[in-house]
Amino acid sequence: MDSHSALLSKPNTPKGLSNGVFQRWQNPVVTAAHVPLEWRYDFDPARNPFLMERLGVNATFNAGAIYHKGKHCLAVRVEGADRKSFFAIAESESGIDHFEFRKYPIRLPQSDDPETNAYDMRLVAHEDGWIYGLYCAERKDLSQPHDVSAADAQCGIVRTRNLIDWERLPDLKTKGGQQRNVVLHPEFIDGKYGLYTRPQDGFINVGTGGGIGWALTEDMSRAEIDDQVVVDPKVYHTNHELKNGQGPAPLKTDHGWLHLAHGVRGTAAGLRYVLYMFMTDLAEPWKVIHRPSGYFMAPESEERTGDVSNVLFCNGWTLDIDGQVFIYYASSDTRMHVATTTLAQLIDYNLNSPEDGLTSAASVEERYKLIDRNARL
Amino acid sequence: MDSHSALLSKPNTPKGLSNGVFQRWQNPVVTAAHVPLEWRYDFDPARNPFLMERLGVNATFNAGAIYHKGKHCLAVRVEGADRKSFFAIAESESGIDHFEFRKYPIRLPQSDDPETNAYDMRLVAHEDGWIYGLYCAERKDLSQPHDVSAADAQCGIVRTRNLIDWERLPDLKTKGGQQRNVVLHPEFIDGKYGLYTRPQDGFINVGTGGGIGWALTEDMSRAEIDDQVVVDPKVYHTNHELKNGQGPAPLKTDHGWLHLAHGVRGTAAGLRYVLYMFMTDLAEPWKVIHRPSGYFMAPESEERTGDVSNVLFCNGWTLDIDGQVFIYYASSDTRMHVATTTLAQLIDYNLNSPEDGLTSAASVEERYKLIDRNARL
Repeated sequence: MDSHSALLSKPNTPKGLSNGVFQRWQNPVVTAAHVPLEWRYDFDPARNPFLMERLGVNATFNAGAIYHKGKHCLAVRVEGADRKSFFAIAESESGIDHFEFRKYPIRLPQSDDPETNAYDMRLVAHEDGWIYGLYCAERKDLSQPHDVSAADAQCGIVRTRNLIDWERLPDLKTKGGQQRNVVLHPEFIDGKYGLYTRPQDGFINVGTGGGIGWALTEDMSRAEIDDQVVVDPKVYHTNHELKNGQGPAPLKTDHGWLHLAHGVRGTAAGLRYVLYMFMTDLAEPWKVIHRPSGYFMAPESEERTGDVSNVLFCNGWTLDIDGQVFIYYASSDTRMHVATTTLAQLIDYNLNSPEDGLTSAASVEERYKLIDRNARL
Repeated sequence: MDSHSALLSKPNTPKGLSNGVFQRWQNPVVTAAHVPLEWRYDFDPARNPFLMERLGVNATFNAGAIYHKGKHCLAVRVEGADRKSFFAIAESESGIDHFEFRKYPIRLPQSDDPETNAYDMRLVAHEDGWIYGLYCAERKDLSQPHDVSAADAQCGIVRTRNLIDWERLPDLKTKGGQQRNVVLHPEFIDGKYGLYTRPQDGFINVGTGGGIGWALTEDMSRAEIDDQVVVDPKVYHTNHELKNGQGPAPLKTDHGWLHLAHGVRGTAAGLRYVLYMFMTDLAEPWKVIHRPSGYFMAPESEERTGDVSNVLFCNGWTLDIDGQVFIYYASSDTRMHVATTTLAQLIDYNLNSPEDGLTSAASVEERYKLIDRNARL
């Protein structure tokens, strides 16, 4: 109990020097150890004489985020020892420490076809007045009866006005295939709702689909998409060669929409997930107008290992009234961290970072230009 | 030499707080560095002027275990730098530290069809009076001549009365397919020997078979099984979705047989192995009567990385005369650890942990019940 209180009240400090783009913070902001003890232990000595952990918590990661009533609120993916994920709100005033879970996790309303697992919620305050939670609803893939582990992923949709009462809407309807990483655009486009999508065939297999897509739907209470256009495709020998997906909903700036995404490549030790950015047109957010080369963040030090190692993933960031941006990213499917920056820095990064020349030689030329410019100073 | 002696005499201490179910211990109990120096170095300066390590040892893991003549004896899987594994007895009176290897490793008698590699022995004191060692005997899979790495795994069988003299028996005969993780039940069932099996098609590929199986054989000196029934199947979106296998032989209690098993799921970074438990009926040990949800132990901190990262595996535990249980588990195919508990705790864990509801929503309901019970205290 004492060590749990100490963990929750531990102040955070900046981690190392900033690279000018963002500042990492020393301590993870939410870990499995942050989950309330009364969610895990039965404190009745008669029922639990050995004071056993009755419902273990394995990890806390991939949180959606929203700045709500002066607090940075995370819809954390909490994974039990049973591997089932659920969502729980953890909130903090500072945004960098003292995150505390509310009394209960979110009791997500179920549809007629209950999902087996629910994860990776994106929280979006839409201009229609609702806060939407889009998440991955996974069920057994019945088309592969002989493969016990075959899963089918679709986009589950809930909405709320207060982060307390949640209304379940029908899952997103598509023309077939799986959908992960579906993210709602925060504004209407010609009176319609815009969705970033990730058309994909399988779970770890990506199949022939891929890239970050874009589609419109008339109504979120019966969301349905037809054609998807590609916003940002997979590209050979980049960090998003194998898979990519939109992170949180984009942030609006005078210059365009700021996007944070994840990119995936294959390695001999499995997949590697890094974060990268791009900017889309204000009026036509499916058109990329700036595309900094390379990754924005990649796993480092303790971030490198966890339940699924070599992974950074982000599906939540917040913007406070001072233009400060709090990037809530998970490392290796295990814990939540924060990095802070500002809108001004992210705009500069997107506008002024060189684009990818797509070959080693082009990268060397770009580096010569930089070295020579510096030599002339 | 001094540092080797210091390592062997280093006292162990409990690691962190217990979760009420078991207590981890700080130091690994057996590592490659524990292997006697004279098994590795040639100490003759004339033959070895550079005092070179002539026969490297890569790892010590996946040990069978037995409490024998007042000592906790491990049949350690010692893997040389050449990737070949063999067995060697390391023993300790405390069970938590001061493990020392005997003068020689086990010289396993070979059959007419010698195995290429031998690993993961289960030591079982059967009520017939013998101590059996069942292990995985692996040979090149000759049915796949073009795949140099294709292996065929079968169950090798030896027995002993003193852990010194070993008698080789014929490999287990089955109706085809591979066999790993075969474990002998310690008591007769209707005068026959009971075997936990793991019918499986390939090595890393699991094929259509799977689950922990059960079969009977008349005679261990020409063991042969026919039909296998499934004791514990693979289940979608659990920790044993992709593979599972019996760990050590089950421990007998008044309430049923205590089983420790490993469960495997796929991730973007390869497979993840955790340990889980269940209890079977005293008279019919192929029938599961209690099935706690979630994992019992999962890799944490230094356990997460090794030759094969993200793996906990256990094929040996001991029970002393006071009802203390010593769980000898390996982390990431690299080193041996111990966790201690008691029969009473393991019985409580199996009888009173909730079963898996198999969906996120069911897991949240279970957690609400726990939170509300705690709130009423």
